[in-house]
Amino acid sequence: MKIAIIQMPVVCDKQANIGYARQKIYEAAQMNADMAVLPEMFCCPYSGGYFLDFSEADGGPAQAALSDTAKKTGMIIVGGSVPESNGGKLYNTSYVYDAAGVQIAKHRKAHLFDVDVAGGVRFFESDYFNAGDAVTVFDTFFGTLGLCVCFDFRFPEMARIMALKGAAAIIVPAAFNMTTGPAHWETMFRQRAVDNQIFTIGASPARDADAAYVSYGNSIVADPWGEVIARCGGGACTLITDLDFGLIDKIRDQLPLISARRTDMYEVRAL
Amino acid sequence: MKIAIIQMPVVCDKQANIGYARQKIYEAAQMNADMAVLPEMFCCPYSGGYFLDFSEADGGPAQAALSDTAKKTGMIIVGGSVPESNGGKLYNTSYVYDAAGVQIAKHRKAHLFDVDVAGGVRFFESDYFNAGDAVTVFDTFFGTLGLCVCFDFRFPEMARIMALKGAAAIIVPAAFNMTTGPAHWETMFRQRAVDNQIFTIGASPARDADAAYVSYGNSIVADPWGEVIARCGGGACTLITDLDFGLIDKIRDQLPLISARRTDMYEVRAL
Repeated sequence: MKIAIIQMPVVCDKQANIGYARQKIYEAAQMNADMAVLPEMFCCPYSGGYFLDFSEADGGPAQAALSDTAKKTGMIIVGGSVPESNGGKLYNTSYVYDAAGVQIAKHRKAHLFDVDVAGGVRFFESDYFNAGDAVTVFDTFFGTLGLCVCFDFRFPEMARIMALKGAAAIIVPAAFNMTTGPAHWETMFRQRAVDNQIFTIGASPARDADAAYVSYGNSIVADPWGEVIARCGGGACTLITDLDFGLIDKIRDQLPLISARRTDMYEVRAL
Repeated sequence: MKIAIIQMPVVCDKQANIGYARQKIYEAAQMNADMAVLPEMFCCPYSGGYFLDFSEADGGPAQAALSDTAKKTGMIIVGGSVPESNGGKLYNTSYVYDAAGVQIAKHRKAHLFDVDVAGGVRFFESDYFNAGDAVTVFDTFFGTLGLCVCFDFRFPEMARIMALKGAAAIIVPAAFNMTTGPAHWETMFRQRAVDNQIFTIGASPARDADAAYVSYGNSIVADPWGEVIARCGGGACTLITDLDFGLIDKIRDQLPLISARRTDMYEVRAL
């Protein structure tokens, strides 16, 4: 499976962001990518003042554009995330479209990012958003994939449940910052990949040093052995990577972590 | 809490290994360490031909020596591990003594290391050992500590359960090898520390390039932010490190991972 992570700049113009994403997805189609992954809040600056204005209901313009682009390119599109409005509430929501443009998954960020690091970043996402309450996997022609948004991936339970549901890769639209990014980003993607013996995929907005919230960038792919097989820097970048899902069984045969779990001693389960 | 990790060479002479460990623990006492941590199989080469000959029952000579050393130095001693014989079965067992020499914990390795990496190491621990079936934490003057042996730490469930039982640090006598060590050792200790917002402590034998099983060394301490605060190379080394358990609450206040778990969505529990 050939994937394209679109590490894109996000500006204060929703239509411009959507247009940029479409352009980069078309370019990825020219490179024969099977799936494009956009970053968290790909069409809305990650800042409290924008979320409501840039929000849309189910079927809104950003979603319609992604569905149309999926159909025209024949690619799966993991639509980063958008501020979803529903019944007067906002959610940080990722929509996924198959190659026919049909929505095949929708994940509302379930862990909201409320953080106040001394001398570093301070952000309370729960001031703006409500939390989803589902663990999300979906089936594709290439295999089952897991999906969560940014802070969700901090919680090993969620990744484990996705892997046990058969996810060959976990896709994480995410926007770490200049405090948590250098400290935690790569280690998290590598260790979740090793623990679950799957691929992990992180898609970040490009870094904008002038933004209210400065994203780390460094979109990343780790393989089931925990090796970083592709990674961006901070700037705008499309990362095209081949994932060989056959590697999963090879690694699991050599180092039996999934099968050696002591399911008689402990359990992880969705409630 | 000041700890001393004794990264020691392990030779084919049980008494010599015990004597070396005692000597290094006495030296650590001179440095005012509160706790000494020995590596996995500190008194027995990690090779199938030695486990039975070097094994001992509860109260055996290695344990008696550690208890006596704990009492004489007034230190807590986490006795790496020894081959424990019990009812005709062997276990890879870690014994812990308090400052009065009283055994306060005993952990039998619960995940046996059966691995066959293409072009790398091949080892089937279950050919020799039986598995324990408990998650182990114990209380000390300094706080609650978790204990597991090597391959046990590969499983995020076990670390999570120890952290939820209140462990401020997880101690892992371990012997990764020259395949898994460079690939996975540091990332695992860092990510388990970040996920659970606790200290993680890995104690390895020193590397012996001529041994049947070549240990990676690199004994390590990571703090609750995931920083490596101390680390050996491959050779014999005593690593003296101060652990500030006050850091745990500071980190948890700034980045609420333990408290932000969605306990309404999933659970991890011991069975």
